[in-house]
Amino acid sequence: MTDLDELVARVRRLEDERDIARLIASYGPAVDAGDADAAARLWAVDGVYDVDGWRMESRADVHAMISSDAHKKLVAKGCCHFLGPCVVTVDGDSAVAVCESLVLVRDGPDVDGYRVWRATAHHFALRRIDSRWQIATRTSRVLDGNPDAHDLLTKGLAGSA
Amino acid sequence: MTDLDELVARVRRLEDERDIARLIASYGPAVDAGDADAAARLWAVDGVYDVDGWRMESRADVHAMISSDAHKKLVAKGCCHFLGPCVVTVDGDSAVAVCESLVLVRDGPDVDGYRVWRATAHHFALRRIDSRWQIATRTSRVLDGNPDAHDLLTKGLAGSA
Amino acid sequence: MTDLDELVARVRRLEDERDIARLIASYGPAVDAGDADAAARLWAVDGVYDVDGWRMESRADVHAMISSDAHKKLVAKGCCHFLGPCVVTVDGDSAVAVCESLVLVRDGPDVDGYRVWRATAHHFALRRIDSRWQIATRTSRVLDGNPDAHDLLTKGLAGSA
Repeated sequence: MTDLDELVARVRRLEDERDIARLIASYGPAVDAGDADAAARLWAVDGVYDVDGWRMESRADVHAMISSDAHKKLVAKGCCHFLGPCVVTVDGDSAVAVCESLVLVRDGPDVDGYRVWRATAHHFALRRIDSRWQIATRTSRVLDGNPDAHDLLTKGLAGSA
Repeated sequence: MTDLDELVARVRRLEDERDIARLIASYGPAVDAGDADAAARLWAVDGVYDVDGWRMESRADVHAMISSDAHKKLVAKGCCHFLGPCVVTVDGDSAVAVCESLVLVRDGPDVDGYRVWRATAHHFALRRIDSRWQIATRTSRVLDGNPDAHDLLTKGLAGSA
Repeated sequence: MTDLDELVARVRRLEDERDIARLIASYGPAVDAGDADAAARLWAVDGVYDVDGWRMESRADVHAMISSDAHKKLVAKGCCHFLGPCVVTVDGDSAVAVCESLVLVRDGPDVDGYRVWRATAHHFALRRIDSRWQIATRTSRVLDGNPDAHDLLTKGLAGSA
């Protein structure tokens, strides 16, 4: 016998996983549109984005990165931050997610097609804050043989932060 | 306290989102198999597919595109329409979804590997018709710096048609 | 009127689909980390992985492939097995899923970026064994015009094994 309380908890878990998958699926469209507000709000106010030697330490830092001239130039040439389906593990008001991504760039108006600039491993530690899932720490390492990238994937699959 | 009616509504929302994600995830496999029936039935009978200056105005138009010699040639050489995870917003019998995609092509039997021909932003407006989600309008613009592509992403993330 | 038993069955279906999507989304991160244990356990003990003329016939065979020098070399150079969102059809304790994937490789420390080595169609037949979804047979064919790849996609979309 399933009672109603148990069923509510199972539905809530599905909703949490859906909310986190949706958050992560929003990142690429937001940064490729150059929409700094939409991308930055995925992070907690004090959230971290640690990407291959560059550490942003707040939502404001992420906003500044997407508002930068370097990023605007990338968007103007044409770029695609393509994140794959994520594996999410929820534990109360905390969660871990792991996925891989490709970043594709167009080298100019006369170039046909795109080149794959990066292929990257991502580990997300998330927290439910004010009833909304937010990124506490996103750690990203290029898949170039770097063992740190492999560790991110392995611990993400194990659901550990 | 959660009552049963509220829980039923939450489960139905998860099912709607699942059905729409499944519909969008079916598109790539259908067109890469050259299966015009499977791809065209994702659209409403009067559904629109507006893609970079080419506007198909019915399910029959989509069917004709996938049955065309040009598309058959692409399938015979080897192509991959790779759509990423989508962000879905359901509102009753209407919904909006946004995602990005890559199209990869193989240039011939002697060429090793694939090139990325296009990276594209997609906005889907969907309707529940005869108890089945169908595409009312799909709008697709290449990510080449075109502000229209960015607008599609931004309005899709906001859940607006 | 929805009664509780019917609702439980609908939630269970969503959970089954979630479990299978999660299993398939785990494959890329596991093999790109060179984590043979995590990848091999996605297969049933007697599960099959049939990929373009190479047929592995057990979980142990999959483990051996990922532990091989050839695979380790690929991981050390940098590779990304990027599987897209899957279309899942559950029928009791059996299920079918279909998706496409890209495999990207880095050709060496002095090469900037990645090339797309393969674009592949995948059909998964899964079974619930000991309360856990496991791969009974995964069949993968490169999208190079081979009609077998198209058949995999078409039968996967139809939910047939």
